[in-house]
Amino acid sequence: MLGNFNEFPDWISRGLDDLFPYKKAEDSDQSFLKRLELSSIEKKPLRVKLGIDPTGTEIHIGHSILFRKLRAFQDAGHKAILIIGDFTARIGDPTGKSKTRIQLTKDEVESNALNYLEQLGLGKEPQNSLLDFSTPGRLEIRRNSEWLENLNLSNVIELLSNSTVGQMLAKEDFNNRYKSGTPISLHEFLYPLLQGYDSVAINADLELGGTDQKFNIAMGRDLQKAFGQKPQFGMLLPILVGLDGTQKMSKSLNNFVGINEDSLSMYSKLEKVPDDLVFSYLNLLTDENLNELSSIPREVQKFMALKITSNFKGLEAAKKAQYNSEKLILGNQNSLEEIPESSISKVNFPAKAFYLFSKMKLCSSSSEARRQILGGGVRIDGEKIEDPNLEFDTPNELIGKILQVGKKKFLRVSN
Amino acid sequence: MLGNFNEFPDWISRGLDDLFPYKKAEDSDQSFLKRLELSSIEKKPLRVKLGIDPTGTEIHIGHSILFRKLRAFQDAGHKAILIIGDFTARIGDPTGKSKTRIQLTKDEVESNALNYLEQLGLGKEPQNSLLDFSTPGRLEIRRNSEWLENLNLSNVIELLSNSTVGQMLAKEDFNNRYKSGTPISLHEFLYPLLQGYDSVAINADLELGGTDQKFNIAMGRDLQKAFGQKPQFGMLLPILVGLDGTQKMSKSLNNFVGINEDSLSMYSKLEKVPDDLVFSYLNLLTDENLNELSSIPREVQKFMALKITSNFKGLEAAKKAQYNSEKLILGNQNSLEEIPESSISKVNFPAKAFYLFSKMKLCSSSSEARRQILGGGVRIDGEKIEDPNLEFDTPNELIGKILQVGKKKFLRVSN
Repeated sequence: MLGNFNEFPDWISRGLDDLFPYKKAEDSDQSFLKRLELSSIEKKPLRVKLGIDPTGTEIHIGHSILFRKLRAFQDAGHKAILIIGDFTARIGDPTGKSKTRIQLTKDEVESNALNYLEQLGLGKEPQNSLLDFSTPGRLEIRRNSEWLENLNLSNVIELLSNSTVGQMLAKEDFNNRYKSGTPISLHEFLYPLLQGYDSVAINADLELGGTDQKFNIAMGRDLQKAFGQKPQFGMLLPILVGLDGTQKMSKSLNNFVGINEDSLSMYSKLEKVPDDLVFSYLNLLTDENLNELSSIPREVQKFMALKITSNFKGLEAAKKAQYNSEKLILGNQNSLEEIPESSISKVNFPAKAFYLFSKMKLCSSSSEARRQILGGGVRIDGEKIEDPNLEFDTPNELIGKILQVGKKKFLRVSN
Repeated sequence: MLGNFNEFPDWISRGLDDLFPYKKAEDSDQSFLKRLELSSIEKKPLRVKLGIDPTGTEIHIGHSILFRKLRAFQDAGHKAILIIGDFTARIGDPTGKSKTRIQLTKDEVESNALNYLEQLGLGKEPQNSLLDFSTPGRLEIRRNSEWLENLNLSNVIELLSNSTVGQMLAKEDFNNRYKSGTPISLHEFLYPLLQGYDSVAINADLELGGTDQKFNIAMGRDLQKAFGQKPQFGMLLPILVGLDGTQKMSKSLNNFVGINEDSLSMYSKLEKVPDDLVFSYLNLLTDENLNELSSIPREVQKFMALKITSNFKGLEAAKKAQYNSEKLILGNQNSLEEIPESSISKVNFPAKAFYLFSKMKLCSSSSEARRQILGGGVRIDGEKIEDPNLEFDTPNELIGKILQVGKKKFLRVSN
């Protein structure tokens, strides 16, 4: 990260990993602030590029980070240019080795593209969708076959001449493969150039991408210069860590939350993400003020789950999901209204589990609590406690959670 | 070199550096002898490819090695396919860095191509030209724009997918540049594939090239296989060492003999090439029996110069050139018929220059000979002798040469 981008309004700087080039110069090719100013003076909205692969993606909240930023530009009056990589998807990987570049038919590509656009909100009102599909002038949908289909050998040679073998092999993934002796087919060197050429074709002012896209976006800048255009800026956003807390969110790792999952499933997954992700989820997936959060982790976590679910599903659905999630924890026979609250003030910390359950009067004594825990009848927020000596350091770890013994005895911890 | 290629007729094996693949298998994709047999049985002439660059080349005898071999195939009933690289010449090197790939206009390319073909004998009778332009079915002239102009991006991606970065960087010149940090533009990787694709376009059975062409010709084989064709064979011929005896013959090094030089200039240059090149010149540029050569170097050298000149200019012109070359040595005032012969049998070897000239009676005494040599008046075959003690080891070094003192005294050394 180059800085805090403090001179930008929050809707731009929020969640940003990198913006390049990043200079405070007067030159609108070097200073994004200047380019923004010009756009406002000339009343010419910025053309903000984002590429999507029509390969049958189920959009998850990790992807949504980029679309949320694109939407922010739309809401500020700029134009989102969605580029559907239909040409590249139809070619695929001629060697058949790449699992991410499967060759698709024209029909498959079109059906995937439509599905992608529907997930983004095609046909819905702006307030109910990720992107604004209906306000005039805010969205352009382009297929890269429009320009790539017409390239001939002579154009391709000219494109290729804009980069060198050394540049390509400096790119991290190529470099790793070259060093490890994993074959790199020559056509793979063409793809960054084609993505870059998309920027030329649509005359982009800005391209959005994950942090792994810096090379390709910079290639777009180079090509725009070679073709006599003002080079675009690159805006990189973090790649979301998945529910497991370690790997990037992806469908294949099953650590994801799809944006089209039902609200209960979305809420339930989100309220269980590891504590150290909660803040970044709030930062990247909501607009909430991060300086005004509760100091109680459990509350922040529920707040995050509620807000994110609410962003995708609306507040009513999110609240219902929260309610049903708690009901789920207790099983169907109980109604949530019946959960009594009980203050944790009488408990001394650090507190072991057997002591906690005895002190909160869910068990008649410490030894009874030990027995119940070892017998498998004790849960916190639906998760079984197996070690009577499990230790809690502060009340905040417990406030808001549901303590439960057997099927009938439970309470919600309050301050 | 893989072998002596003894199983081939002399017109094939003569001068060959490499023929690949080289197997004695039954498979006509692996055994060139088998492919030849098939061609004869099926009465289908082989399609023998040779590519030429229409960049304004003045053809020299070094280039002629390839055309002589191509002609041998024509004379044996096969078809020469000359490929004019007009498309590549018109594109040139988009970076402008390559001195060998200058961008030419369509008119320049066509005029260069015509000039090249005229040098090869276009419009002449077969007996007076390098290639046979007139016997029906022996020559096809193609321009690679025919097929390259129609390639689109999708075709190029497929072409590129047939090779890897590792393969390209294994190629000697690319490897040297990559290791030394000299930039390699990406489009340069495309050129070997385009040359290879030419073989697909014309369905070549055999491609001729210099020893530096092995990589590109092998690429043609790979692509033909990928496109479902029988792969071509590659026949590599040596790159001729120039008149300086060290570097490859080239116009820019001025160590060349152009095939369109006048016969006197051609003969004079050839009879002066360093001794250790004479045999290879005879081998690569004539059809003479190398087992029946004179044992006297001077005679072999004059024989070589006469035969090569005769191949390009006809026997009469070559003989006249030889005559005039000797006249040139003595200056215009003398007529060659007047040169008396004198036997070297009376000289004992090793012999120093002053002793030689005294013993051959061109000087009255050894001391007179020393004086004349130091005074600059003594020549052998027109070249001034400056050291009286210059030593000759055998009579063969001198037989056939003209010894000369001043302008009036001279003789030709005989056995």
